[in-house]
Amino acid sequence: MKLIRYGEPNKEKTGVILEDAYYDTSAFGEDYNEQFFESDGLARLKEFVQNNKGKLERIPENSRLGSPIARPSKIVCIGLNYADHAAETKAKIPEEPILFMKSTTAVVGPNDDIIIPKNSEKTDWEVELAFVMGKKASYVDEAEAMDYVAGYCLHNDVSERAFQLERGGTWDKGKGCDTFAPIGPFLATKDEIEDVDNLRLWLKVNGETMQDGTTANFIFRIPKLVSYLSQFMTLLPGDVISTGTPAGVGLGFNPPVYLKPGDVVELGIDGLGTSKQQVKAYAKG
Amino acid sequence: MKLIRYGEPNKEKTGVILEDAYYDTSAFGEDYNEQFFESDGLARLKEFVQNNKGKLERIPENSRLGSPIARPSKIVCIGLNYADHAAETKAKIPEEPILFMKSTTAVVGPNDDIIIPKNSEKTDWEVELAFVMGKKASYVDEAEAMDYVAGYCLHNDVSERAFQLERGGTWDKGKGCDTFAPIGPFLATKDEIEDVDNLRLWLKVNGETMQDGTTANFIFRIPKLVSYLSQFMTLLPGDVISTGTPAGVGLGFNPPVYLKPGDVVELGIDGLGTSKQQVKAYAKG
Repeated sequence: MKLIRYGEPNKEKTGVILEDAYYDTSAFGEDYNEQFFESDGLARLKEFVQNNKGKLERIPENSRLGSPIARPSKIVCIGLNYADHAAETKAKIPEEPILFMKSTTAVVGPNDDIIIPKNSEKTDWEVELAFVMGKKASYVDEAEAMDYVAGYCLHNDVSERAFQLERGGTWDKGKGCDTFAPIGPFLATKDEIEDVDNLRLWLKVNGETMQDGTTANFIFRIPKLVSYLSQFMTLLPGDVISTGTPAGVGLGFNPPVYLKPGDVVELGIDGLGTSKQQVKAYAKG
Repeated sequence: MKLIRYGEPNKEKTGVILEDAYYDTSAFGEDYNEQFFESDGLARLKEFVQNNKGKLERIPENSRLGSPIARPSKIVCIGLNYADHAAETKAKIPEEPILFMKSTTAVVGPNDDIIIPKNSEKTDWEVELAFVMGKKASYVDEAEAMDYVAGYCLHNDVSERAFQLERGGTWDKGKGCDTFAPIGPFLATKDEIEDVDNLRLWLKVNGETMQDGTTANFIFRIPKLVSYLSQFMTLLPGDVISTGTPAGVGLGFNPPVYLKPGDVVELGIDGLGTSKQQVKAYAKG
C-alpha cells in the first residue's frame, strides 16, 4: 500500500495510490498519525480500501502533496551511514551509529519550497531513505526489529552546514530549520519494497546529478538502527528515522557548493518515488 | 497561576494550585497542550478559575502529579549555561548557546521514579529551570522574546554520561531515555516569578546537597535563548526549553559519582516548588 496526504498545509486529507492513480480516503476518518499506527491502522486502512474499491474519489490532478504521515513525535537521523559520504566530509567511519534529532517543525510536503534560512550561506541537500515506526519500540532485538517498522519514504535531510558544524554544540542546530524535511511523495508499506538494502537513491540540483548511491552501501542497516536507537530512547508509532545520505552533498565539493535562491532540487529512491523542491530566500511572511 | 496535571500516567487530568491547595479543572475541558497555549488558554483558564472559584473540586491528597504540561512537540536543552558547570566538566565557556534535544518520551511526573537504563553505569542528575513557550516563535527579537514565554517549571535533565559523551555522535544519545525528564510539580506563569534571573536552584542525592546555584549565573538569559533558538528552528506553543544546570553534577566529582538503584534525588527552585525521584534499575515491564 502507498499512503499519501494532500491538500493545504496543516489541513491535509488522507489518500492512497492505487495503480498510479490517487484516491481520497477521508471517509476512513483518521489521519496517518501516532494513534493510527498504534492501533493497527495500516491493516484497517487496507481493509477499508478493499471494501470501498470503486467508490473512492479520485484526487484532483495537481493537488499539493503533504508529508505522507502527520507530524511525528520525533525525527531521529543517522549521521555518516554511507562510507563514501563519511569520506567526503573527512569524518571517520563511525564505530556505532551517530544520531541527531530534527525539529518536527521542519516537515513539509515533497514538492514544497526549501526556504534558505536568514543568515544562511551553507544550505545543503541530502537524499535519504527514511523509515516510519509502526509500533512503540524500546530495547528491541535486531532479529525482531523489522516487526516495528511500518514502511519507507523519501526524505531530503536539508542541512545548514555552518549552523551544524561551526556554531558550537550539536548537529541539531543545522537540521531543524523550517522546510528542512521534505518527506514523500508517499509512504510505502514494507511489502511494497522487495529489498530495502538494494535501492538506488539519487539527487540532482538544476538537472545535474549530485548524489547517486545505493542503500547496499549502508554501514548500519535498518534492523540494527531500530535495535540500537531503542536502547537510548523509546520510538513511538509514526516516528520518522532517516538513515543517512550517500556521497555527493554540497559540503563534499572542493570548494563546497551550496543552494541558492532559484535552484531546483530533485531526488528519488527506487520504489519510493521522486520529489522536487524550489529553493527560495527567506522572506518575512 | 500555577498549573498542574495529576492522576494516572498518560491519563492525567488538569488542575490549578490556589493558596497551596490543589483543585481540579477538568471541567475547563482542555489539556495543557499546544492547542491550549496557542489559543490563549492561559487567559481563558484564568477566567474559568475566577468564574468557578468556590465550585472547583479539591484534588485528593497524595494524588500522583504528572508533568504540568502535556507532551510537547519538542524539548530543547541548553548545554553549559553556567560558568561553574562548564568548568567542572572541563569545557570552555561557550561563545554562543549550545543546544541539544531530548526525546519527548523521556517526560515523567515530578515525583515518578528515575529508571536507570539497561547497560548504564553513568546516570547523572541536572537541576534546571525550564520555560514553556506560549506562542509560536520564529526569528524573534530579544526585546520581544518574553512575550513568547508562558511560564517556568522545575526540570531534572537526567543524563547518561557514557551515552552522551563516549558513544559517538551528539549529546542527544544520553538525554532521551525513558524517565529522563521529570518535570514539575507545576507550571508557574510568568507573573508568579518576580525575577527569573535571581532564583536559587539546588539538588540533593540521599539528603546530601550536590548542586546549589543561582540563575543569576546564567551565561545566556531567557530572552537571548528564545531569540537565539528561534533563528534555527520554530518553537511551538507548549515546547519546553531547559536552560542548563549549575555546578555539582556527578560527572564533576573526582572520581565521578553516578546514581544507583535505591538513591533518592530531591531538587527545587525558588518559587517553582520541589520534586523527588526514587532511582530504580531497569526491569522489563
